[in-house]
Amino acid sequence: MPPYKLAIIGYGKIAQDQHLLAIQSSGVFELAAVTSGHAKTIPGVEKVFSKDAQMYAEAPEVACVAICSAPAKRFDAARRALLAGKHVLLEKPPAATLGEARALVNLAQSHGLTLFGAWHARANPAVVEAAARLKGEQVATLSVTWKEDVRKWHPGQEWVWDAGGFGVFDPGINALSIVTAILPAEVFVRTAKLSIPSNRQSPIAVELGFGSEPPGDILTAIFDWRQTGPQTWNIEIQTRSGRTLLLTEGGAKLEVDGQTVKTAPSREYPDLYARFAELLAKGASDADLRPLELVADAFMCGERQQVEPFSF
Amino acid sequence: MPPYKLAIIGYGKIAQDQHLLAIQSSGVFELAAVTSGHAKTIPGVEKVFSKDAQMYAEAPEVACVAICSAPAKRFDAARRALLAGKHVLLEKPPAATLGEARALVNLAQSHGLTLFGAWHARANPAVVEAAARLKGEQVATLSVTWKEDVRKWHPGQEWVWDAGGFGVFDPGINALSIVTAILPAEVFVRTAKLSIPSNRQSPIAVELGFGSEPPGDILTAIFDWRQTGPQTWNIEIQTRSGRTLLLTEGGAKLEVDGQTVKTAPSREYPDLYARFAELLAKGASDADLRPLELVADAFMCGERQQVEPFSF
Repeated sequence: MPPYKLAIIGYGKIAQDQHLLAIQSSGVFELAAVTSGHAKTIPGVEKVFSKDAQMYAEAPEVACVAICSAPAKRFDAARRALLAGKHVLLEKPPAATLGEARALVNLAQSHGLTLFGAWHARANPAVVEAAARLKGEQVATLSVTWKEDVRKWHPGQEWVWDAGGFGVFDPGINALSIVTAILPAEVFVRTAKLSIPSNRQSPIAVELGFGSEPPGDILTAIFDWRQTGPQTWNIEIQTRSGRTLLLTEGGAKLEVDGQTVKTAPSREYPDLYARFAELLAKGASDADLRPLELVADAFMCGERQQVEPFSF
Repeated sequence: MPPYKLAIIGYGKIAQDQHLLAIQSSGVFELAAVTSGHAKTIPGVEKVFSKDAQMYAEAPEVACVAICSAPAKRFDAARRALLAGKHVLLEKPPAATLGEARALVNLAQSHGLTLFGAWHARANPAVVEAAARLKGEQVATLSVTWKEDVRKWHPGQEWVWDAGGFGVFDPGINALSIVTAILPAEVFVRTAKLSIPSNRQSPIAVELGFGSEPPGDILTAIFDWRQTGPQTWNIEIQTRSGRTLLLTEGGAKLEVDGQTVKTAPSREYPDLYARFAELLAKGASDADLRPLELVADAFMCGERQQVEPFSF
């Protein structure tokens, strides 16, 4: 089987930090082109375009695209790709709104194309292990703590603060993608507190209270972008049977009752591309909108409080 | 067939203004009980309870409930009703969040009970007529104008301003329930501007820009709660074939190319209860979450601007 010729759309931080190497080392995908609003040349990439329409016209060998542009631009880019007959991998979140994401799902389906709404944090062996261990269990408590330094992970990225830029939900949705993947119950937002810098549109910190069916006791999440020093990406779950599962390092490590049972170097993006290849081979799609729905619900029912202004 | 014995849960403005008479005149439902946090006695109602749990214990003849409490309380009330084995009609919106609504849908299904997420504005002959006339058409423009006086329609209702209280989306979602019912395309939110009084959590005015699939030209909605004098609840649609459809009076009247083609006195709530009876007879449910999803999306991607404080 020849490699899938793939183009990256949107050559920003995540494309450069993760997608490029994952594609080049995949053995299944070949990076055929990149579209970028600012880069004119990219080492090792022969075809660089400023517009995707031009790329579709001049590089017809491209069979699929990975869309890494900012969430607000994702829908239009994905729609053009699908109408050009290309299979699509979407960085998370799949679109700026649930409605946009649903429209893309329908469009891909009606054109017989693969749409993969990727949730990279799910592609961790410890996350898969946690899901397996929670199967058939009842959840008593859930405590998500996602605290990181926005200046370190999003240096100068002003769009994250715009309306529709998600703010601290940008990393927080990774935690929600894990929670929805591993919990044996459906969780939903009951309460939300959104702390929004007085000079910004999007939250810098969020506290969520969840309900679940069947109900748990206390299910919470805290996202905070103001953490300097050690960074924390933990999910702790206590089951009714008395077990404690602790996922740390963003899902890379799993402890059960204090014993490490799974730890692996991060292979999130290589595993995502392996999954994309699997979907392409099967002619299937995978677009789970539950993490995005939790975020939309938090914005809808959330109580807003103004906090001190933020600048990079 | 004996009448269905029904209880109203939450005896506020909408229950008193609309549900009571619609039930009493339905010929199919019999008002068996009411639960209310404040009313101790209600003329013509034999059984008034302060807690629904007590009602389920002491009035086992109740087969179904109409939940009219504030959106933030709707999920818990509906869940208790379903667990007590009662069929449920939910006032709009069906819950405070999409996740809550989805959990109720699943719970009703797993218990073999009817769940009816009612959208009263859809129950207008002119709305049904508009949907029929738009079938097979392509939409060029959509212009929703929903302007009313909050002091007139929600006198002293502080909860509408709370987080999760929906603000002007409380009437606006009626327009969205019509739009999603009649348009031959799927609409989704692309842009939103939310005007929020400086002393409140929820918007007093909203401007929405929609996308659609297949795409239209200009699709917009304006909701405003600051309208005194004449009230406006209009939806205007221009089709690619050159037709203009104008729904006025909240969906009660339809004009096509300037000619009135359908007008009827409002029978929204009687028609809702007729539909509920139909669902009960069939053992079916009806819970369309698209209007609520549009609102959640608007909150998620919307740009907030502070406007002058509001007091009743």
